[in-house]
Amino acid sequence: MALSVEKTAAGREYKVKDMSQADFGRLEIELAEVEMPGLMACRAEFGPAQPFKGAKITGSLHMTIQTAVLIETLTALGAEVRWCSCNIFSTQDHAAAAIARDSAAVFAWKGETLQEYWWCTERALDWGPTGGPDLIVDDGGDATLLIHEGVKAEEVYEKTGQLPDPSSTDNAEFQIVLTIIRDGLKADPKKYTRMKERLVGVSEETTTGFDNLYGCRHSLPDGLMRATDVMIAGKVAVVCGYGDVGKGCAAALKQAGARVIVTEIDPICALQALMEGLQVLTLEDVVSEADIFVTTTGNKDIIMVNHMRKMKNNAIVCNIGHFDNEIDMLGLENYPGVKRITIKPQTDRWVFPETNTGIIVLAEGRLMNLGCATGHPSFVMSCSFTNQVIAQLELWKEKATGKYEKKVYVLPKHLDEKVAALHLGKLGANLTKLTKDQADYISVPIEGPYKPPHYRSLCVGWMVSFGGKETRPLLEEDPMGFE
Amino acid sequence: MALSVEKTAAGREYKVKDMSQADFGRLEIELAEVEMPGLMACRAEFGPAQPFKGAKITGSLHMTIQTAVLIETLTALGAEVRWCSCNIFSTQDHAAAAIARDSAAVFAWKGETLQEYWWCTERALDWGPTGGPDLIVDDGGDATLLIHEGVKAEEVYEKTGQLPDPSSTDNAEFQIVLTIIRDGLKADPKKYTRMKERLVGVSEETTTGFDNLYGCRHSLPDGLMRATDVMIAGKVAVVCGYGDVGKGCAAALKQAGARVIVTEIDPICALQALMEGLQVLTLEDVVSEADIFVTTTGNKDIIMVNHMRKMKNNAIVCNIGHFDNEIDMLGLENYPGVKRITIKPQTDRWVFPETNTGIIVLAEGRLMNLGCATGHPSFVMSCSFTNQVIAQLELWKEKATGKYEKKVYVLPKHLDEKVAALHLGKLGANLTKLTKDQADYISVPIEGPYKPPHYRSLCVGWMVSFGGKETRPLLEEDPMGFE
Amino acid sequence: MALSVEKTAAGREYKVKDMSQADFGRLEIELAEVEMPGLMACRAEFGPAQPFKGAKITGSLHMTIQTAVLIETLTALGAEVRWCSCNIFSTQDHAAAAIARDSAAVFAWKGETLQEYWWCTERALDWGPTGGPDLIVDDGGDATLLIHEGVKAEEVYEKTGQLPDPSSTDNAEFQIVLTIIRDGLKADPKKYTRMKERLVGVSEETTTGFDNLYGCRHSLPDGLMRATDVMIAGKVAVVCGYGDVGKGCAAALKQAGARVIVTEIDPICALQALMEGLQVLTLEDVVSEADIFVTTTGNKDIIMVNHMRKMKNNAIVCNIGHFDNEIDMLGLENYPGVKRITIKPQTDRWVFPETNTGIIVLAEGRLMNLGCATGHPSFVMSCSFTNQVIAQLELWKEKATGKYEKKVYVLPKHLDEKVAALHLGKLGANLTKLTKDQADYISVPIEGPYKPPHYRSLCVGWMVSFGGKETRPLLEEDPMGFE
Amino acid sequence: MALSVEKTAAGREYKVKDMSQADFGRLEIELAEVEMPGLMACRAEFGPAQPFKGAKITGSLHMTIQTAVLIETLTALGAEVRWCSCNIFSTQDHAAAAIARDSAAVFAWKGETLQEYWWCTERALDWGPTGGPDLIVDDGGDATLLIHEGVKAEEVYEKTGQLPDPSSTDNAEFQIVLTIIRDGLKADPKKYTRMKERLVGVSEETTTGFDNLYGCRHSLPDGLMRATDVMIAGKVAVVCGYGDVGKGCAAALKQAGARVIVTEIDPICALQALMEGLQVLTLEDVVSEADIFVTTTGNKDIIMVNHMRKMKNNAIVCNIGHFDNEIDMLGLENYPGVKRITIKPQTDRWVFPETNTGIIVLAEGRLMNLGCATGHPSFVMSCSFTNQVIAQLELWKEKATGKYEKKVYVLPKHLDEKVAALHLGKLGANLTKLTKDQADYISVPIEGPYKPPHYRSLCVGWMVSFGGKETRPLLEEDPMGFE
Repeated sequence: MALSVEKTAAGREYKVKDMSQADFGRLEIELAEVEMPGLMACRAEFGPAQPFKGAKITGSLHMTIQTAVLIETLTALGAEVRWCSCNIFSTQDHAAAAIARDSAAVFAWKGETLQEYWWCTERALDWGPTGGPDLIVDDGGDATLLIHEGVKAEEVYEKTGQLPDPSSTDNAEFQIVLTIIRDGLKADPKKYTRMKERLVGVSEETTTGFDNLYGCRHSLPDGLMRATDVMIAGKVAVVCGYGDVGKGCAAALKQAGARVIVTEIDPICALQALMEGLQVLTLEDVVSEADIFVTTTGNKDIIMVNHMRKMKNNAIVCNIGHFDNEIDMLGLENYPGVKRITIKPQTDRWVFPETNTGIIVLAEGRLMNLGCATGHPSFVMSCSFTNQVIAQLELWKEKATGKYEKKVYVLPKHLDEKVAALHLGKLGANLTKLTKDQADYISVPIEGPYKPPHYRSLCVGWMVSFGGKETRPLLEEDPMGFE
Repeated sequence: MALSVEKTAAGREYKVKDMSQADFGRLEIELAEVEMPGLMACRAEFGPAQPFKGAKITGSLHMTIQTAVLIETLTALGAEVRWCSCNIFSTQDHAAAAIARDSAAVFAWKGETLQEYWWCTERALDWGPTGGPDLIVDDGGDATLLIHEGVKAEEVYEKTGQLPDPSSTDNAEFQIVLTIIRDGLKADPKKYTRMKERLVGVSEETTTGFDNLYGCRHSLPDGLMRATDVMIAGKVAVVCGYGDVGKGCAAALKQAGARVIVTEIDPICALQALMEGLQVLTLEDVVSEADIFVTTTGNKDIIMVNHMRKMKNNAIVCNIGHFDNEIDMLGLENYPGVKRITIKPQTDRWVFPETNTGIIVLAEGRLMNLGCATGHPSFVMSCSFTNQVIAQLELWKEKATGKYEKKVYVLPKHLDEKVAALHLGKLGANLTKLTKDQADYISVPIEGPYKPPHYRSLCVGWMVSFGGKETRPLLEEDPMGFE
Repeated sequence: MALSVEKTAAGREYKVKDMSQADFGRLEIELAEVEMPGLMACRAEFGPAQPFKGAKITGSLHMTIQTAVLIETLTALGAEVRWCSCNIFSTQDHAAAAIARDSAAVFAWKGETLQEYWWCTERALDWGPTGGPDLIVDDGGDATLLIHEGVKAEEVYEKTGQLPDPSSTDNAEFQIVLTIIRDGLKADPKKYTRMKERLVGVSEETTTGFDNLYGCRHSLPDGLMRATDVMIAGKVAVVCGYGDVGKGCAAALKQAGARVIVTEIDPICALQALMEGLQVLTLEDVVSEADIFVTTTGNKDIIMVNHMRKMKNNAIVCNIGHFDNEIDMLGLENYPGVKRITIKPQTDRWVFPETNTGIIVLAEGRLMNLGCATGHPSFVMSCSFTNQVIAQLELWKEKATGKYEKKVYVLPKHLDEKVAALHLGKLGANLTKLTKDQADYISVPIEGPYKPPHYRSLCVGWMVSFGGKETRPLLEEDPMGFE
Repeated sequence: MALSVEKTAAGREYKVKDMSQADFGRLEIELAEVEMPGLMACRAEFGPAQPFKGAKITGSLHMTIQTAVLIETLTALGAEVRWCSCNIFSTQDHAAAAIARDSAAVFAWKGETLQEYWWCTERALDWGPTGGPDLIVDDGGDATLLIHEGVKAEEVYEKTGQLPDPSSTDNAEFQIVLTIIRDGLKADPKKYTRMKERLVGVSEETTTGFDNLYGCRHSLPDGLMRATDVMIAGKVAVVCGYGDVGKGCAAALKQAGARVIVTEIDPICALQALMEGLQVLTLEDVVSEADIFVTTTGNKDIIMVNHMRKMKNNAIVCNIGHFDNEIDMLGLENYPGVKRITIKPQTDRWVFPETNTGIIVLAEGRLMNLGCATGHPSFVMSCSFTNQVIAQLELWKEKATGKYEKKVYVLPKHLDEKVAALHLGKLGANLTKLTKDQADYISVPIEGPYKPPHYRSLCVGWMVSFGGKETRPLLEEDPMGFE
């Protein structure tokens, strides 16, 4: 797409694929609202007080229908919002159109190039000359990373007059980041520094447990079916990794009638797989007899081109981990004589010259549930996103109180339990209430939290406070240590 | 669409939605071939001998990618083929385009009107002045019905000179059938009679057991997800009917995490549901608390507008039985003040004026797995369709031998077992072989059949021989009595 | 045990293990009554009219708690009853004691020798000099067989004066049968002929489907746990045969967390296993890597001593098919140097001399669910046994009407459905009722039967009418052809 | 039983039910060894060095076959051992006999009175005049409690001359504890103080996660079947609490075909239940319609007599949580006119006078899986017990090094992973190995630990070091905060 910003009649900026899909997007947003009771409860509880009045929020998070409900919850609470996606394939164009038309500045479309992706990220962060956003909703940390790298470059430039050099790195994507920063630097050598000064905090939509397990259990078969229409029953499926994502994937495949084999490095997770009747083997053990391969490890270099060469004709290879380095796409692309046949967008058949057999790679090795289907369903995202809203509210409310230092915080357990409780009514559940006597017996407050912080979190969103001052810590680690 | 026949460069007739989708269709057909080992085995075994040389075959069967592999198996065995779909929503336009371009005369597109539907059926039967097809592959019996009604009308006309009167019936669809016959009669008063004379037999793709159970287990959640993206886990789902279709649907919903409630009339099927931990209640018991309703009964008038009025906001209502009379669409459309909002094709929200709440109806009450997804997966259809090929071969081979009388035959058990065996290799299975001693002990031949005819058929396609003479029996009953 | 008949104070004959267990048996019978709503409904419906008044019934059927409720249903309807077990391990001694004390003549104990077994069978048939029973409830046909062989011998003896010669057969068990007949012949050369004359009919408790599937799903893991306490999760289990018994076993093992491998001869059943994610291989493929082996085939010579030699140390080998010829016990016993270590009754470790490793054989290769646990649970047996009561009632009611000829009948479908309906209330189910219009549409009566005779029977008990005259057909074949 | 100590020929003390069961116990111990690869690996790795040489270990832990393998692992490593059970119903008498005869001093039998229970505990702690054990393996903390209370009493007595007064408490069991201490005090006023001085540490077999989930999934249905033979399929089962124990129970019941309803106080656990298709309601909502009730909460006062009064006839009520205060047994016993009918040991029917209907209570409200079946299977216990052995080794090895202070420690993650790894081979699993590059990428050592300490522990045994000096902390809290 031509990289020029467009404007709505009201003057709000955007860049989306097709504004005519806005009506369709609106209808699906309305459906999703019914499935997202946590967000709707936030609107009901906090909307009247307009707590985000005056707050500028930038989001870098898959621009889907569910995210649209999140965005409109933020705006319903008074925020001004600019948004980009955090994955080149994950935008739903009708969702982007509806939000761009009705609610917020959106820069996102399905099938961005990496160049376009970072242009969108920069647009989402650019709130004009007075600085960047007050708050960031990040997923994967790319928005935060851009500020971080920008500040670093501006500091070097201020001290040495030296511009960042894209050719200093082999990483193609990082070259793009450096180019953007370099080009911006010439025009405004304090842009990212001003952003840093203004920024109150970031809440990071990185989750574990609940949404990974149940979301992937839903969206893995959905992606497989939409991309390939293949019958899962009777097939041999290999799930690489048996963390929460892997558990969700393995459960879905097993329930659909596949014979599931798990690869694992952790003996405890391996035992868990065995207890469910799953075989635990290495990828090498099974590479030539399986029909479906799914990577879920959060690690890199899981399925290499040398594995793919040995697979059965039309074996399906896909990734459902956040980053796109689990499957060796580079090795595949560079394999001598390999031929790529695009069946349809996000579904490619790669044919090896020696055998003239091919494998089916989904979403170019990126998140297949977002690339080939619509990601986690609304109900799951409602849990995660309600946590995000609450984290943003907390950061904004306490921005000047000193309650949060410059560090990474996990959302407190009682808020996690509150978010869960907001979702029970939709499913017709009745919670049991502790008596005082029982609460005392197990040493918890009657109203919770009932468990220690690390126990089975619903959705471990966390947040970073930047305390309003000096340099800030980046989201460099998961404080919970979850995979 | 304008109802005019088009022609390929080679002169073959067709009418499809968009010929430019032929390449895409071809790629998906090639994928499907790998998943349809039974059909490919037929090509390998019978292709060289060209047993269908000279045979004209008309098909009336969902014009999908899988059916494309069936059609090209028939042509690979020497047949000439004309095809229409047996459901107004079930055509996959890229499949139709690929077949129209490459292999057979196709008259089908997704979203036909009833008028268009019967025009297509007539086109598929029309092989020119020398008569109709030699063989019919039918699904639901519409092609056979048209001949039957045509012959009846021609007989009346010959005796009395009287033309059929469309206004003699209340049934809107049957009015269309009579109109087509009436209009044809004037031009050619012996057309259907000549068809009857020529016709050797029909094989009917009406199945039970294997493909209903496993096919629906796959395609019900697929259709739900593509149409609504709704999370199934945690929801209350009502499955009306617990035959094979219902069993497949209930299993899929339960495995996806729904709480499933079954309605049944048959106490034995009800007991089976209970044994799986499913609740058995009446629709009235649960109509206002469930989230998803699926009809699978094969009966009519299952979910009436008075039920729909009482449902929760955004309850999903869909049908996966063959005919579209399980859900009271007429009652819904005529409900005073009801409002229909089309979210996307095949997904409508109907809003009731009293409550201003709506329900989501899929595929206008027709087969939701074909209307909203891609129907049964290739592997399942390979079993059914291989049976069809074998039935057609048998009818054609024995057309003059008198082996088959003018009546309905179920495919013999040993062919059923053979078809199953053709599908085992793809899934890596090793069958155990009986010793002579063991075979004698249980009184079966070593090579099978191992079970009596009615025992757990793979796919009870049946066939009708017309014996080459005089009036023929129509497919008026399922000789197996299956639901 | 010393083979002498004992008598209660009231003069009724019996031979059981330990009369002091009668109270315990009575308590468990009372529990079972609550779980057997079909039988209790028979007592309520038919008891007042005493339809069995004057009928003498002999039963040869596992003498368990559930059978006790059957027996007391027969007596509650007016019958006089004599009973033996149809398996040397299946008697529950407390059940036998309670019935012997309170209700009927019982000859049965857990752990009979074959000699004792046939003595008990003869006792159960012996109603004194006026002839045998009016009706037989048989399971496996041994009671009927004894009459059949007895009549044959008496006919030969009458014609030739020749006595049966036990040494004429290699089969050890049949030698015992011939000996009993020979010894009886000398005392009374017309005993079995008189029995034949008197006998009205037999109902055979041989079932398929419902009770095999759900009963074994319950009782297989129960037997495994009671016999070995082994953890099933994580183990590799081989199920030989995937009929209804095999399906129940495989489901139970899979659900308990085992990885299940199926062996099959029938490609359709093999496909069904694959569709559930089970691997289908031959026994030879997996004999040395599996932990648990279960035979369910109804065939013979399934697991031979040469298989057992290759198994892992402490592999568990058991049979849940009716007959004890699936596992090669003879081969095992005769294996040179093999050592048998009895862990506890019905749980033996057999150690092979070459490897000094052993396998665990349950119930000496006989029905492990009856030998090691308590068989099918009451609720399942209530379905089967209610069918038996209804069959007996029908035979007795029509004994002089000529309604039934000398042949084998399957219970009519509407009675099968009635029995199912009697069991729904206990599980809280509400059946849906057809409207007249719907019933007409699918061409069934409103009140059923809803399905053709062979469709998914609840419990295919069948009955043999002997028409009150001349020679009678024996139960030599399953008229349904089920495995 | 008469409470007198007996002695083996070799002079070792014991008190068990029936020494003649020792051979049977030995056979089952040998079977269990094959299922407990972790313990056998400890014998192989550590046995030769005899690291426990000179150590006196007291255990208070269910005296089962599995515990026998633990005890003989401790003795194989050089320890001297005295043992009692930690539950009045959980001893397996044949296990106790085998150990008493062959390996260690045992004071335990199935069905102890509370009086007997504490006598056994005292015997297990009594190593003669030189003080108590060097190490304790505790489960539930009763052995540690007795020392704690003893020291407290001795301190008071030393200061004030006052003896503990059993009548000072309402708690019947604590009265017994005080009586024992009081009676001992007169004879030896420094006994518990000397024990305290000597004690190096305690490892507590209180676990979470792995063994609760998989162990209860196995042993709950086992206990139900052995106690009641009831068919689980089709029943409505209520599981109170959805922690790991509840999850295992609910999974087992669902898989066996029950309809499962969960009660929960924690909204996150409630959401998890809903995601599995389970209904979440309060006990009051369902008390009168369910068939089976299981308490798993770890809390108290869950099922009260007022609930039990409203249950269906023959509803089954049982507890699988550690303590016996989840079911209101006291309220039941004291209910006016209630009648208790013992079906068999651990299976009682309680009949209410108003309705003359009864409920079935298992194991008198105590751990039903140990009371009615054989507890967790060997493989599960091997994981827990291998952790115990490793904890004991660590405490003993570091007794003088000061590595551990007087506080509670959770076993380090790498040992937890090691224990898991020892169990993979038995199940045929192949672990994947990280490359250096991958390990660096996710910031873990190649050889693990791969997860943070609190992540999905295999078995959170913990240990208390007493540092060899002064007063010691008691096990008053679970440092992990798990339910």
